[in-house]
Amino acid sequence: MSNTALHTTLRHYQERNNRQLAHWMDSLGHHDQPLIQAMKHGTLLGGKRVRPYLTYVTGQLFGLDDDALDTPASAVECIHAYSLIHDDLPAMDDDDLRRGQPTCHIAFDEASAILAGDALQTLAFTILAEGDLCDQGNAYRIHMVKELAAASGAAGMCLGQALDLAAEGKHIDLQSLEMIHRNKTGALIRCAVRLGAYAAGDKGVACLPQLDKFSEAIGLAFQVQDDILDIISDTETLGKPQGSDVAADKSTYPALLGLEGAKEKAELLYKEALHALDAIPYNTQQLELFARYIIERNN
Amino acid sequence: MSNTALHTTLRHYQERNNRQLAHWMDSLGHHDQPLIQAMKHGTLLGGKRVRPYLTYVTGQLFGLDDDALDTPASAVECIHAYSLIHDDLPAMDDDDLRRGQPTCHIAFDEASAILAGDALQTLAFTILAEGDLCDQGNAYRIHMVKELAAASGAAGMCLGQALDLAAEGKHIDLQSLEMIHRNKTGALIRCAVRLGAYAAGDKGVACLPQLDKFSEAIGLAFQVQDDILDIISDTETLGKPQGSDVAADKSTYPALLGLEGAKEKAELLYKEALHALDAIPYNTQQLELFARYIIERNN
Repeated sequence: MSNTALHTTLRHYQERNNRQLAHWMDSLGHHDQPLIQAMKHGTLLGGKRVRPYLTYVTGQLFGLDDDALDTPASAVECIHAYSLIHDDLPAMDDDDLRRGQPTCHIAFDEASAILAGDALQTLAFTILAEGDLCDQGNAYRIHMVKELAAASGAAGMCLGQALDLAAEGKHIDLQSLEMIHRNKTGALIRCAVRLGAYAAGDKGVACLPQLDKFSEAIGLAFQVQDDILDIISDTETLGKPQGSDVAADKSTYPALLGLEGAKEKAELLYKEALHALDAIPYNTQQLELFARYIIERNN
Repeated sequence: MSNTALHTTLRHYQERNNRQLAHWMDSLGHHDQPLIQAMKHGTLLGGKRVRPYLTYVTGQLFGLDDDALDTPASAVECIHAYSLIHDDLPAMDDDDLRRGQPTCHIAFDEASAILAGDALQTLAFTILAEGDLCDQGNAYRIHMVKELAAASGAAGMCLGQALDLAAEGKHIDLQSLEMIHRNKTGALIRCAVRLGAYAAGDKGVACLPQLDKFSEAIGLAFQVQDDILDIISDTETLGKPQGSDVAADKSTYPALLGLEGAKEKAELLYKEALHALDAIPYNTQQLELFARYIIERNN
């Protein structure tokens, strides 16, 4: 599969995921409410859908079709969408622009953005509790709830965001920076892969150790590349202000390792990811190509 | 059971619930993090524990002991605690005082309060997914997740808060006011009762229609009494500023029905609640006394 083919597949799952999320939000009723509109604004306007993609591609390793993976893929993306809405709030990162669009609290208001984020987190658990799964996946439904909560909460994503805010304007070391990103973005990426495996039942669960190694490496690589892009890309390509890390005096991989050092780090993590896949007795080509994409993407 | 005995029982479950919540928050690790401290501030400093109490007392109808009810009781209270932290934020109700203490964003900061609320919502689902249940309850674990999410999200509590904010400064009719409260507070109170029933398995589930009627009546009565107390009580007894509804020009039951009309409404709802219990073939004395307490409490 070439790079173009990967982009076509990414777009395919982006559209599939959008349809799924729109369906779930429509099922809540109250279409005329700003709350529902703010939730849709925060989820449906762009986004690469890295996490749902990982869920789909991981499940496919074990022979699952897309129908058996829609539920975990949608749930993970709801958590991601809620976290972006809250992270953009004035009291947090105070960002006005996301994916080339006004952020939720700019398009609506702060109260609506807080509530939309809250309700999107809830929706993630509604989806996991109610959504379709195949029989093998259904046996692991409550494990999925547990995983998603563990990745999202005060020992995962929320902790990472808290640590990141606390580190603003401070010069932290590489270990602390990794601690932030392993929680802030890494935990949910790892979870996206895990949910794809759980959806396949025992076969998937048997591969969790290798899949964890893979997803931990690409999760960190994703952040390293984000930091690199903040320096070398431009606002239009990024869909958010270029140079905002430097402006906020944030500790980043390029700040700690230099730009070349950060690029080497991303390459090293890519190799770690590939090495982890070696031990998986299924066709892991799509995950390999995706790992390459993670460190080569320009937005 | 006398009124004093009810207060003793309430305090007993308040303390039990505090121990449970402290245990869950300690299990997250990172005790030194402001995030965890803000979560504890928002949950452990006071509060009547109406929702956990309802879960315990409902489960006891069917012969469950407290150990079999700790999990749903704790999960429901986490959702309630998160909602209070977020409702108090400057962009929402902008309250500095809650339960006689500084609100979370005053004691910490806005970012910590947003994240603490977020992580408490997540913790609710961790608790439901991981906490102990008896065998009958375990069979309904995923139903509990579904119920809690349905009560909390964009078709329940979050919708209620959004409608309430939208109604501020407007004069709405009784039907719209009920729509707000059935979602904002009613949905979670109903859920607290439902989770107590689910914890008992099939026996509990068979009584859901009657229990719903009961909890919907006391949920609304609870709000009517809240509105009455905002007028007739004082700041010290309430632990929050007396007269804040009037100050915010909020639509309330006394504003729409007059103070006497609101008292009659509370009494009517109380009778509805008792009538619903008539059809339940178990000893419902504790629920009856609690319904009385709801409309007679002074804080």
